[in-house]
Amino acid sequence: MEFILEDISEAEVARRRGVYTPLTDTVRDLVDAVIRTEVSEDALDDARRRIAEVVADLRSKQMDGPYGVRHTRQNTGMAWGNAVIGVRNALAPPLDVVHVDDGVRSDFTLGAAYEGPPGCVHGGVCAMLLDHLLGNAASTEGPCYTGTITIRYLRPTRLGALSARAWVTERTGRKLYAKGTISDAEGVTCEAEGVFIVPRSAVDTPAVRWSQG
Amino acid sequence: MEFILEDISEAEVARRRGVYTPLTDTVRDLVDAVIRTEVSEDALDDARRRIAEVVADLRSKQMDGPYGVRHTRQNTGMAWGNAVIGVRNALAPPLDVVHVDDGVRSDFTLGAAYEGPPGCVHGGVCAMLLDHLLGNAASTEGPCYTGTITIRYLRPTRLGALSARAWVTERTGRKLYAKGTISDAEGVTCEAEGVFIVPRSAVDTPAVRWSQG
Repeated sequence: MEFILEDISEAEVARRRGVYTPLTDTVRDLVDAVIRTEVSEDALDDARRRIAEVVADLRSKQMDGPYGVRHTRQNTGMAWGNAVIGVRNALAPPLDVVHVDDGVRSDFTLGAAYEGPPGCVHGGVCAMLLDHLLGNAASTEGPCYTGTITIRYLRPTRLGALSARAWVTERTGRKLYAKGTISDAEGVTCEAEGVFIVPRSAVDTPAVRWSQG
Repeated sequence: MEFILEDISEAEVARRRGVYTPLTDTVRDLVDAVIRTEVSEDALDDARRRIAEVVADLRSKQMDGPYGVRHTRQNTGMAWGNAVIGVRNALAPPLDVVHVDDGVRSDFTLGAAYEGPPGCVHGGVCAMLLDHLLGNAASTEGPCYTGTITIRYLRPTRLGALSARAWVTERTGRKLYAKGTISDAEGVTCEAEGVFIVPRSAVDTPAVRWSQG
């Protein structure tokens, strides 16, 4: 599991983010449109053909395998392929994670593509986002990986505007304990607690800041 | 939370699935290509413009809000917008869930769009898929919702060909207990256990078969 050094300036990171963000946002829009469209089957087939042409053009030059996880010399994280925060990954909402005094928080909106029960966020999506945020809170002092995580669903989470937060509750040796919640306008809908492990090899390794994929 | 009756035959369900599957697969391909492409910034901008045109065409006629959860009179599930199994949802791998003697199982492949740690499946994605599968196993006798779920990560799950299974271990009143695992060629990478609740209103409600979104 190797991390890749991108030897570029912070300004260049920001510039490239500005190039990829509108493209990925448009693909997110496409994902939503394919779920909700009611156009004719001929129009669907035409859309498929045109998308396939774009795919062929993009694939005319591409990296082997996945994007990987990159960071700059200044320890700015570039997890641009990440399933939760990736700026180049249309599956990611994406979460924009803000570091606050006691941990991390993120405000985000989930639409049709995140549905499970009718009109509600898939419980698995809640689990995915909480896993990420608790891991993010736990890794603000250095790299760690998830040991276990428990999600408790209090009530359905409606699709729409949501917020989530996570914070570390305790540190014992190489174990960190973290908690987190997802909330809508009426309060908490689900909560999580997890145990995170600092690998022996990573003790005293400087933290990378993973605010934005 | 209302389920929608689609009053169509099983043959028509299959025919429509055949229309949407190639379109959604092409969008999945696009999601992957946007993560991995190395074409010029001009080419990226051209791709964005062409995708936006397709989106506008698809949105010329569309349903309000999310897809919802539908089923036929024969209780075949049509969760086509579902984040894990949806045939119209490019975020879904999608899982194709097979009902086996002791529960459910699914074989699937996860590529670049599901990455967390370098070359590995995002732990949150594992949690999402296990949440879905355990819920699916628990709901083979009728509707239920997740109370709590715990994921235990044994080792990293490499991107690639994987399989998962889930089964009910116990039923007490309106509570069902389920377990599940994700495995690669070398064995189990993570395991889950969950508690599922049958809503009072749903006792004795016939089960819908959610094999494919």
